[in-house]
Amino acid sequence: MVHPSPEVLDTKEIDIRSMSSSHRHSDQAPYMHKVGMPSKQNLLKEIKSTVKETFFSDEPLRPFKDQPRSRKLVLGIQAIFPILEWGRDYNFTKFKGDLIAGLTIASLCIPQDIGYAKLANLPPQYGLYSSFVPPLVYAFMGSSRDIAIGPVAVVSLLLGTLLQDEIDYETHPKEYLRLAFTATFFAGITQASLGLLRLGFLIDFLSHAAVVGFMGGAAVTIALQQLKGFLGIKKFTKHSDIVSVMRSVLTSAHHGWNWQTILIAASFLSFLLFAKLIGKRNKKLFWVPAIAPLISVILSTFFVYITRADKDGVAIVRKIEKGINPSSVNQIYFTGDYLMKGFKIGVVAGMVALTEAVAIGRTFAAKKDYQLDGNKEMVALGTMNVIGSMTSCYVATGSFSRSAVNYMAGCNTAVSNIVMSGVVLLTLELITPLFKYTPNAILASIIITAVIGLIDFDAVILIWKIDKFDFVACMGAFFGVIFISVEIGLLVAVSISFAKILLQVTRPRTALLGKLPLTTVYRNVEQYPDAAKVPGLLIVRVDSAIYFSNSNYIKERILRWLADEEEQLKAKDLQRVDFLIVEMSPVTDIDTSGIHALEELYRSLKKRDIELLLANPGQAVIDKLYASKFTDLIGNDKIFLTVADAVLTCKPKTAVEDV
Amino acid sequence: MVHPSPEVLDTKEIDIRSMSSSHRHSDQAPYMHKVGMPSKQNLLKEIKSTVKETFFSDEPLRPFKDQPRSRKLVLGIQAIFPILEWGRDYNFTKFKGDLIAGLTIASLCIPQDIGYAKLANLPPQYGLYSSFVPPLVYAFMGSSRDIAIGPVAVVSLLLGTLLQDEIDYETHPKEYLRLAFTATFFAGITQASLGLLRLGFLIDFLSHAAVVGFMGGAAVTIALQQLKGFLGIKKFTKHSDIVSVMRSVLTSAHHGWNWQTILIAASFLSFLLFAKLIGKRNKKLFWVPAIAPLISVILSTFFVYITRADKDGVAIVRKIEKGINPSSVNQIYFTGDYLMKGFKIGVVAGMVALTEAVAIGRTFAAKKDYQLDGNKEMVALGTMNVIGSMTSCYVATGSFSRSAVNYMAGCNTAVSNIVMSGVVLLTLELITPLFKYTPNAILASIIITAVIGLIDFDAVILIWKIDKFDFVACMGAFFGVIFISVEIGLLVAVSISFAKILLQVTRPRTALLGKLPLTTVYRNVEQYPDAAKVPGLLIVRVDSAIYFSNSNYIKERILRWLADEEEQLKAKDLQRVDFLIVEMSPVTDIDTSGIHALEELYRSLKKRDIELLLANPGQAVIDKLYASKFTDLIGNDKIFLTVADAVLTCKPKTAVEDV
Repeated sequence: MVHPSPEVLDTKEIDIRSMSSSHRHSDQAPYMHKVGMPSKQNLLKEIKSTVKETFFSDEPLRPFKDQPRSRKLVLGIQAIFPILEWGRDYNFTKFKGDLIAGLTIASLCIPQDIGYAKLANLPPQYGLYSSFVPPLVYAFMGSSRDIAIGPVAVVSLLLGTLLQDEIDYETHPKEYLRLAFTATFFAGITQASLGLLRLGFLIDFLSHAAVVGFMGGAAVTIALQQLKGFLGIKKFTKHSDIVSVMRSVLTSAHHGWNWQTILIAASFLSFLLFAKLIGKRNKKLFWVPAIAPLISVILSTFFVYITRADKDGVAIVRKIEKGINPSSVNQIYFTGDYLMKGFKIGVVAGMVALTEAVAIGRTFAAKKDYQLDGNKEMVALGTMNVIGSMTSCYVATGSFSRSAVNYMAGCNTAVSNIVMSGVVLLTLELITPLFKYTPNAILASIIITAVIGLIDFDAVILIWKIDKFDFVACMGAFFGVIFISVEIGLLVAVSISFAKILLQVTRPRTALLGKLPLTTVYRNVEQYPDAAKVPGLLIVRVDSAIYFSNSNYIKERILRWLADEEEQLKAKDLQRVDFLIVEMSPVTDIDTSGIHALEELYRSLKKRDIELLLANPGQAVIDKLYASKFTDLIGNDKIFLTVADAVLTCKPKTAVEDV
Repeated sequence: MVHPSPEVLDTKEIDIRSMSSSHRHSDQAPYMHKVGMPSKQNLLKEIKSTVKETFFSDEPLRPFKDQPRSRKLVLGIQAIFPILEWGRDYNFTKFKGDLIAGLTIASLCIPQDIGYAKLANLPPQYGLYSSFVPPLVYAFMGSSRDIAIGPVAVVSLLLGTLLQDEIDYETHPKEYLRLAFTATFFAGITQASLGLLRLGFLIDFLSHAAVVGFMGGAAVTIALQQLKGFLGIKKFTKHSDIVSVMRSVLTSAHHGWNWQTILIAASFLSFLLFAKLIGKRNKKLFWVPAIAPLISVILSTFFVYITRADKDGVAIVRKIEKGINPSSVNQIYFTGDYLMKGFKIGVVAGMVALTEAVAIGRTFAAKKDYQLDGNKEMVALGTMNVIGSMTSCYVATGSFSRSAVNYMAGCNTAVSNIVMSGVVLLTLELITPLFKYTPNAILASIIITAVIGLIDFDAVILIWKIDKFDFVACMGAFFGVIFISVEIGLLVAVSISFAKILLQVTRPRTALLGKLPLTTVYRNVEQYPDAAKVPGLLIVRVDSAIYFSNSNYIKERILRWLADEEEQLKAKDLQRVDFLIVEMSPVTDIDTSGIHALEELYRSLKKRDIELLLANPGQAVIDKLYASKFTDLIGNDKIFLTVADAVLTCKPKTAVEDV
């Protein structure tokens, strides 16, 4: 053996003692664990801590701890309106950044809004309305510094399809609009109450993979929807699935297409894509793709105006209401059966909008490394949509594309949102009439370029590499959206995500452990081929909390490990198994069914006259083992601090030839 | 330090090497783990193993392994009809046990059947029918040796309420009966298909606690239902909740009660309870409570016959069809909207019946230590009910009370069921007319004594002691059944069980680790107060797989541990934290969201210039860490075999004063 380095020597010192002591522990294992046990009668504390970790894991009241009342009040108000907090040390340099960012996203959002409104089957001005009020509200209440608020493609599409299922927007535009506001109202209520009830974690149940798939699918669907404007097709299907869209595209091929429209659309699309490319190549030129849409709107509008191409069947926006948001309080359905429908749609749309906003918020918060209070965010977004629903806005949330631009343009605070909504205000007051001649084709091209960004190939590839099950969820959501509908895709995504959780808790992993040569470390023999099983004993590790959902499986699996082992041993007629050591480090919790499973395991082992030893049960587990008197059943001296200790006591019976 | 014993010395030998080597490992951590990694391209294998563990965890084909074809065929047939297997070495001594057991449960089941049929709102003979055919079928196909098949209280009640919700049994007895057969048919189909599709594990989602609560609630409800017969009330509510039952009992108090009935019922009830007490006191006298019901039926019938008490308003059975089960194939609804209703009811009743049967089977299999193939059991029970539905039987399953008697009477095989059904056959053929004068009151008393056994106080107390959350589920089910209805109680039970699983995966435990004095073992500082934190580093253990449902929480929780720690250190102005070690032994799996969370954790640590080290990631985890290039991000040399190794490498920067 190599001459040990000083370091090794000093660890040697430690370790002689370590083993002796840990051996001493092993004799007094119950002592060790009694120490580990908290007092029995702490039910309230228990419940309290569970509730705390579940709902208040972020300790929202932390800053309020031991502060004078007056200060608490101030902090309270600041908690509701973060602007009061960061507003105080706001200065001109910060404003410069926000101004530029605000102007950039404004130029990007105006054409997008008009397009997205069409996705939701709403008149164009409602898109602009939704980019005026909500960003203002958010600026005061929101805590993300980089998110850009407004209508977004996916939510607009989702809302459009869900509403269309209830009311036809062509035959009953009024009711349709009213239902849209109702849905928006309840979307806001949903978001706010999720935040207030501290149920923010619920949106975590939509897995990253599912979101990627859903977004991708939605992007494709939206792009396909744009073929209407792009090809200038008059009568177009109201379904969003690829099959019926393609059918109505092809059927209208021989007469329905309009070459002038296609010409305009194609040329500007290539222009926009080229701008996007420039932006990708050189991050400094981020503003090129950002303002390209507005430029192409201006150019194309002017072009159509002078050529009067609209006479040749080039569809144009035709009319956008002038002036700012009218009130829509009295339009919301608070009675009748549309109330329920609006509520349902609102919940779904609200959740999706929330997922997108929170995802964005987290991404950029991580980039700039500031904490984002999920629940507070939800309250902000919710209030914003509730107020929005009363001022003729439909569901608004954080937009991926615009937030990215906002970030790259160097925004510092939510002031950029204020700037943007200022610009939108001016647009509404002054220049909406100028959009009269804007060809729909250009909006189609703009939306296509925008949504392309939602298809994240790299993420999909990574998901495939990392976790096949996630990949299934991702693809399920993707194809669900494309081939059936947005809501079905969403449903698929959620259910696959749940299926995964359930699978995890029903069929946990178990592993046979072996001794790593020249150490006292015991590891999975599959993972470490050089780990050697100790003759005469079987060491099994259970890799999950033992709950009713898996207790039977775990019991039977362990017995199967044993059966396999004994089979092999018989074959090679080696020493039989006398001890079964269950390594419980990963067993974080156990319930009554779990205890029963252990008892049954113990009994059937006893019949085979094999001793059951437990290694390193955690706090919650040892607690319950005592409460259920299981420790008395198997004997306190059968519970050890480490597998090594357990193995040591087995030695007397079975000679370990050291590997 | 004490003079080390020889044993300690030899472990010392081991341990010097251990540390040096494991330290050597730590330098070559990536090497270690590369060894641990299986080859990349094993997607198929991966999926195959998942499927295997999920659906074929019990290796049903194991005995077929490397056998000649002819043998395989025999084994196949034996697998379907276990009787062929145990039948071959069946002998007289075994038969004696089975005969006695069979007669005992027969005497118990006959009066119970008649009563249970009333619970299901069916004419009495259908109870007996269901104790004739199903046990026969089960005897050939079932693999439990102790279960006693027949109609049971809970399922009868459940079926009764569910059917009554669809059709009123008084106004439309024919349709009601037909729907009952339809439900039974689909109950069988459900059970069989669960078995064939290897979905047996689904019933594990009804937690033990929930079952205890549900059973208790059902028992109370059933007992309350018996007040009708017990007090001789004519018009009685059709609802099963305690409130409406009590109301109809009290409203009928001043005129509706019949004192003769009460007299008979009360006296025999006390007799039955006394018999039960004797059985409890002296296990040898198990037959006393077993035959007491039949005796009291005979006595009371005779008594009523001579006194003609029925003239004084003592309700009697009046009429039981003579003869064995008529066919009912043509009565099952295979069309119309009753098909769907029957299907729904069947699925629910089938699942509940299955849960009860499997629970019983497992209990006694554990007692006699023989394996029970859950999926095979389901196929047997399913077939039994399908055949039953075609021979005028309603849903039959394993009965708690009768199975216990069967076991205590010393049954050896399912032959006891054959004996029982033989006795039932004779009863149907010969003596049913004699039941004409049997007072309903006696049946009420018998059922009450029977269901009392379903209320398991000890279990409830144990549940309370062990797991508070289980207790909530238990009580939820209990009160759900009592105050609302059986199906609601069931729903509550299931949903609380699920809520628990979700909570588990959303808010996993995390723990700060400290070094146990004089060892290299690191444990939860809460559990082991003498475990000392290592200055300069923070060791956090994550106690769960890291999935989308908890990845964000885990990331934020770890950062919070860090924040708290740093706060304290500042307060005591101690050395700041330079290293964060994440002990990953319990982290059994990770998905894409989990990887992202780790990346974000790494980044925000880097900003605080704290190094991230990982200790002992499992196979699946290290696999994915590599696939996602996370290992390259933090550096391969930052992954260690044990926490001790990780701590060693931190030493150079931060001197550990040994505790």
